[in-house]
Amino acid sequence: MAKTLVGLWTNGDCTEVNIEEPEPGKLSGWYKIAVGTPREASVPMTGLVNHTKTGCPSFSFCVSMGEIGGDTCNAVVGQYFNHDGEEVLKTIWLMRAAVDDHSNNWGATRVGENTFKRKIE
Amino acid sequence: MAKTLVGLWTNGDCTEVNIEEPEPGKLSGWYKIAVGTPREASVPMTGLVNHTKTGCPSFSFCVSMGEIGGDTCNAVVGQYFNHDGEEVLKTIWLMRAAVDDHSNNWGATRVGENTFKRKIE
Amino acid sequence: MAKTLVGLWTNGDCTEVNIEEPEPGKLSGWYKIAVGTPREASVPMTGLVNHTKTGCPSFSFCVSMGEIGGDTCNAVVGQYFNHDGEEVLKTIWLMRAAVDDHSNNWGATRVGENTFKRKIE
Amino acid sequence: MAKTLVGLWTNGDCTEVNIEEPEPGKLSGWYKIAVGTPREASVPMTGLVNHTKTGCPSFSFCVSMGEIGGDTCNAVVGQYFNHDGEEVLKTIWLMRAAVDDHSNNWGATRVGENTFKRKIE
Repeated sequence: MAKTLVGLWTNGDCTEVNIEEPEPGKLSGWYKIAVGTPREASVPMTGLVNHTKTGCPSFSFCVSMGEIGGDTCNAVVGQYFNHDGEEVLKTIWLMRAAVDDHSNNWGATRVGENTFKRKIE
Repeated sequence: MAKTLVGLWTNGDCTEVNIEEPEPGKLSGWYKIAVGTPREASVPMTGLVNHTKTGCPSFSFCVSMGEIGGDTCNAVVGQYFNHDGEEVLKTIWLMRAAVDDHSNNWGATRVGENTFKRKIE
Repeated sequence: MAKTLVGLWTNGDCTEVNIEEPEPGKLSGWYKIAVGTPREASVPMTGLVNHTKTGCPSFSFCVSMGEIGGDTCNAVVGQYFNHDGEEVLKTIWLMRAAVDDHSNNWGATRVGENTFKRKIE
Repeated sequence: MAKTLVGLWTNGDCTEVNIEEPEPGKLSGWYKIAVGTPREASVPMTGLVNHTKTGCPSFSFCVSMGEIGGDTCNAVVGQYFNHDGEEVLKTIWLMRAAVDDHSNNWGATRVGENTFKRKIE
């Protein structure tokens, strides 16, 4: 069971994720979003991976901005593909802001996507 | 810093989540979706929580169906509210299926919501 | 083919939608979000409906806040159910803000849900 | 107020949208998804556009697969950008399947993204 996801990935813009698989099925590492303030620093991520029979693992991971003083929580789901020789992670994410009370819950969740490619250092 | 999220929660239908906070900011526990086959069993969850100043923590957690033989990964983001004396977790989730190749990626992600309330045992 | 969706619906909070079906398969009407400023006024909506064989039509509709001076666009998808004698519209929505340039696109889309019930006047 | 969105757009894969603006603020045209069966044919779309001050209109539109015998409804939100001289439509979409009853509502909505570029014919 290859550690297919392990390594450094970038969306080509300003988001990077460094993925480790400390034990089979579990992910750890760090996530870095330089878009906006004050999210320049990297934050820890934790997640899970399914090693599918096709060799294209599906995964989900969580990121908490609380580490750098924010109240936002992110969650990412995606799958690894080797598309014409290029490794990509196709992901969809949710970003949850903390709001003051229940009546402001309606607008607290953003959705978006990222395609990550391996970053050669 | 109260362990606000700790305990057993249900969406009133067939989804339950049991949340523990083994160390500050980290979540573990189990998740149980009885909707559909073969997801009757519970699976481990892992996640993160931000203890906001308002006492309404925001959180995200991941669930892997791989534990019971599936290839689906779930990710949940949400926030705790005490709304008129009733504790609720308002959540939005993503469910990622594993697909065979890159060309089927487009339809692999579902989105939905759950409102959880404390389950009194 | 009954005009199942026609009438006034409310989410029990502060969102209302009035649905007309001027010709088979097409929806028009108005949408009213009182959450936040300055969206107190109602705005036109336009959409589409599929009259399924089960009598539970699925639908999608668009709402533009441009009518009242905003730059936000909403889109809603959902389905009608008669659940134990109570009519409900289960919906998931996207709300798209207009951002200044491409680099701010990542955070422009919110996601949420609404359950509407018939409003008896 | 330029008809910025008008014309034929492709995601480079197999989805095309032809956008017309028959009157200011309103969109019509057709949408074509060749992914999967039996969605080869094009279907009508209807929507709305906000002509923002930045020249980057935001928009939403609806597509019904009912025209070709399906029960699926799609809704798309997005914004036009001219990014380094290249026109793009950045979109997020929801795809709603019709399900038999209320208990199957939870998994009926998919989410994804498309980046469209002008198709030169």
